[in-house]
Amino acid sequence: MESKLQVYNSLSGKKEKFKAINAPNVGMYVCGPTVYSEVHLGNCRTFISFDMIFRYLTFIGYKVRYVRNITDAGHLENDADEGEDKISKKARLTELEPMEIVQKYTLDFHHVLALFNNLPPSIEPTATGHIVEQIGLTEQILKDGLAYESNGSVYFDVAAYNKKFEGAYGELSGRKVEDLLSNTRTLEGQSEKRDPADFALWKKASPMHIMRWKSPWSDGFPGWHLECSVMSSKYLGDQFDIHGGGMDLKFPHHECEIAQNKARDGKKPVNYWLHTNMLTLNGQRMSKSTGNTLLPGELFTGDNDKLSKSFTPMVVRFFMLQAHYRSSLDFSSDALEAAEKGFNKLMEALVVLESIEPSKATIGMDLNSWILKLHGAMDDDFNTPILIANLFEGVKFINGIKYGDFTITASDLKLMKSTLDGLVFQVLGLKHEGENSKSGNDEMVNDLMQIILDSRLRARQTKDFASADRIRDLLSDLNITVKDGKMGAEWEVN
Amino acid sequence: MESKLQVYNSLSGKKEKFKAINAPNVGMYVCGPTVYSEVHLGNCRTFISFDMIFRYLTFIGYKVRYVRNITDAGHLENDADEGEDKISKKARLTELEPMEIVQKYTLDFHHVLALFNNLPPSIEPTATGHIVEQIGLTEQILKDGLAYESNGSVYFDVAAYNKKFEGAYGELSGRKVEDLLSNTRTLEGQSEKRDPADFALWKKASPMHIMRWKSPWSDGFPGWHLECSVMSSKYLGDQFDIHGGGMDLKFPHHECEIAQNKARDGKKPVNYWLHTNMLTLNGQRMSKSTGNTLLPGELFTGDNDKLSKSFTPMVVRFFMLQAHYRSSLDFSSDALEAAEKGFNKLMEALVVLESIEPSKATIGMDLNSWILKLHGAMDDDFNTPILIANLFEGVKFINGIKYGDFTITASDLKLMKSTLDGLVFQVLGLKHEGENSKSGNDEMVNDLMQIILDSRLRARQTKDFASADRIRDLLSDLNITVKDGKMGAEWEVN
Repeated sequence: MESKLQVYNSLSGKKEKFKAINAPNVGMYVCGPTVYSEVHLGNCRTFISFDMIFRYLTFIGYKVRYVRNITDAGHLENDADEGEDKISKKARLTELEPMEIVQKYTLDFHHVLALFNNLPPSIEPTATGHIVEQIGLTEQILKDGLAYESNGSVYFDVAAYNKKFEGAYGELSGRKVEDLLSNTRTLEGQSEKRDPADFALWKKASPMHIMRWKSPWSDGFPGWHLECSVMSSKYLGDQFDIHGGGMDLKFPHHECEIAQNKARDGKKPVNYWLHTNMLTLNGQRMSKSTGNTLLPGELFTGDNDKLSKSFTPMVVRFFMLQAHYRSSLDFSSDALEAAEKGFNKLMEALVVLESIEPSKATIGMDLNSWILKLHGAMDDDFNTPILIANLFEGVKFINGIKYGDFTITASDLKLMKSTLDGLVFQVLGLKHEGENSKSGNDEMVNDLMQIILDSRLRARQTKDFASADRIRDLLSDLNITVKDGKMGAEWEVN
Repeated sequence: MESKLQVYNSLSGKKEKFKAINAPNVGMYVCGPTVYSEVHLGNCRTFISFDMIFRYLTFIGYKVRYVRNITDAGHLENDADEGEDKISKKARLTELEPMEIVQKYTLDFHHVLALFNNLPPSIEPTATGHIVEQIGLTEQILKDGLAYESNGSVYFDVAAYNKKFEGAYGELSGRKVEDLLSNTRTLEGQSEKRDPADFALWKKASPMHIMRWKSPWSDGFPGWHLECSVMSSKYLGDQFDIHGGGMDLKFPHHECEIAQNKARDGKKPVNYWLHTNMLTLNGQRMSKSTGNTLLPGELFTGDNDKLSKSFTPMVVRFFMLQAHYRSSLDFSSDALEAAEKGFNKLMEALVVLESIEPSKATIGMDLNSWILKLHGAMDDDFNTPILIANLFEGVKFINGIKYGDFTITASDLKLMKSTLDGLVFQVLGLKHEGENSKSGNDEMVNDLMQIILDSRLRARQTKDFASADRIRDLLSDLNITVKDGKMGAEWEVN
């Protein structure tokens, strides 16, 4: 199959036509969370971005196998292969078994992503579920002379790899090995490495380290980069289409993944590398130590002094998708309030659309060229801000029909509905929310409101204005306003 | 700590005083599902039962580490170690990767259990996440001479085990090895076993078998029984308190688990074995082949010709808990309808309780002896049917207060509220549901109903009976009935 999709490939540094290795199948791997604490908002942005990409690829006809891992072992506190395992440390501090930590934060992660209306990936493999495969790849790289054992640990030999593959290390991140060498201080404990640029495939566990497995070299645990190499190729093959992650993973994590895979079979493992950009909060880097942080749960409750109010998951999702995934994005209460207005406007127009009566002609919009623009935005490296801007042209048109300025034919109405349904709900993954629209799923509220409006109408008809006013006042106490229009009374929750 | 809890131990065949090895900590392991199809209702009953047990142990002060596994490899189609892996087979039939099957049905399982208001376990380990440990235990049992290799597979040697441990095999199920021998036909392919009673620790994979791992004996996969032996002891220790599962797992699965663990270290692995009984449907065994089946989703939608209507998850949970976990339970539409009435009655009484005004004396009930009976029921092997029967004494008392026949003091009211809150919500795990009670979380519906009842009252007061009747009729269309009582109009959804 042929698509018009262009994607920005971090490997080449430019937009390229997307061509699947085995169309219509697409293999996509995205680095998931290390489950040792509540998922942070920057991670949510990454996973919402790839959810949108997964949805769009599916929408245009690809059959996507989407693999996103759970890192439940091997991720140390710093990138130089030193420090404690993040999960073990949390377990020690909270006096829990490491796998209790894993369970707690995996559940939290799934819960938050479900609130954001993310679809689950096709496969969600874990690092601890692939110890055998990780030992297997380490053995193979050792045998090929591109790794060495040192005191029970095994390190990838970057210099040997670079020699064999003509300076390939750094091809993704643009880093030069020479710079890495001169810029890296030799820390204590790193003396096991022949070279500071080398990285761990297998680490011997200290006696206190709980998470450990038997291996030919020591009781230990796999290096962090190794899991993604074995899990992506196990489920997607030695060469697959798309690998994604946050841009902070480009180096060393993704660079090391490429090296491990190439060391295995000499093949280029991934055709398109996609990276999402960072989130800031009020113009500053988010950081626990400075207190400049915001958790997803705090957004939904408003319980953070950086917020003027709470925001629903759909407003936050809409806000994130109003920026391109490769642009950095600044969170602020003001920006979220603006996004909330836009989201409500869009959702209200979709409700209006459902009640529009067709006319004999379409006046006020060139529907076909509008639809081309919508798809064109998505085909241009998933440009959701341009898509959303164009959606608002549709909103203007819909509201114009409502107020009698424009008209639409039955067939155009059908086309408009299916277009918006596809792009707003299926691709952007937005949905109506009770708080944002009376068209939410609460049928009962709607039905009861009809009885109340009926009583109000009867009171007016019998000139019992006191009763009619009383109803209006009682509704107003519930923040419900009633507007009388040509098509009868309409109500909304403010 | 000391508790009055007695539990029926399948190992001894009688009720025993419960004594935790390392109180207040309790280790509990429950065999989870093999994730190759939608979870069936019998499994739901097992997991709801152990959820109640987990909740009660926690309620009386134990700190429970509750481990429930996911079987994502190694479970073959029949118990004689032959046939295809259940997950591989489903993957082949649906043209998916086995781990896509695992993901789909793990999500389904979690979703259904959440609807039933089950709490997640503390750890949810997978078979594929413990291949290294399973190979390790197999090596050890081989080394000790209680297993043998045969054509790349490794079998547990029941005769050798029985010799070493003086006929221990069968201690849980009561089966005798001699009977097993004479009753088991030798199937083709079983010739690898020295004895039909032996069971697989490791199976060599056929060339077509996708799910395979390297081992010292072959590329293959672990035997089904092995995973629970290694995962329970990894997270709960070599000896732990409670092991649970459906009674169909008693033999061979649990019998083999005990044998494997004893072969490892000679210790009795589990102090209390708890088994849940079976579900039938209209008096007959549930079976896909005869069509006598019912899925959880069909209960919730009513979409099965064996049901007169749909039932909410809480009604089904209540229905299940009205039987003792060790009794068999027959599902039928009539029995569910009866349970629904009981559940609604209980929940309505809890709503009434919230609005009761205290008096100077408690008249109509001996609260302390009632509370003793409630706890006594639970301490008697988690006897939820007796607990529920006693709860209805409380319901009678509450309704008596409502109608002015009985009274209650402020401190007794407080005690009654906390008792019911603890046992109904925390221990039985029931909760209010929108459909079952107007006290559900839909505040808006309540508020709108107040406006409607207010309009109706005003219409009556001004002798506008036509409007009052119209409101009654419109509400009736929504299945809402209004009853005029001493305390004003009350409404309910039928």
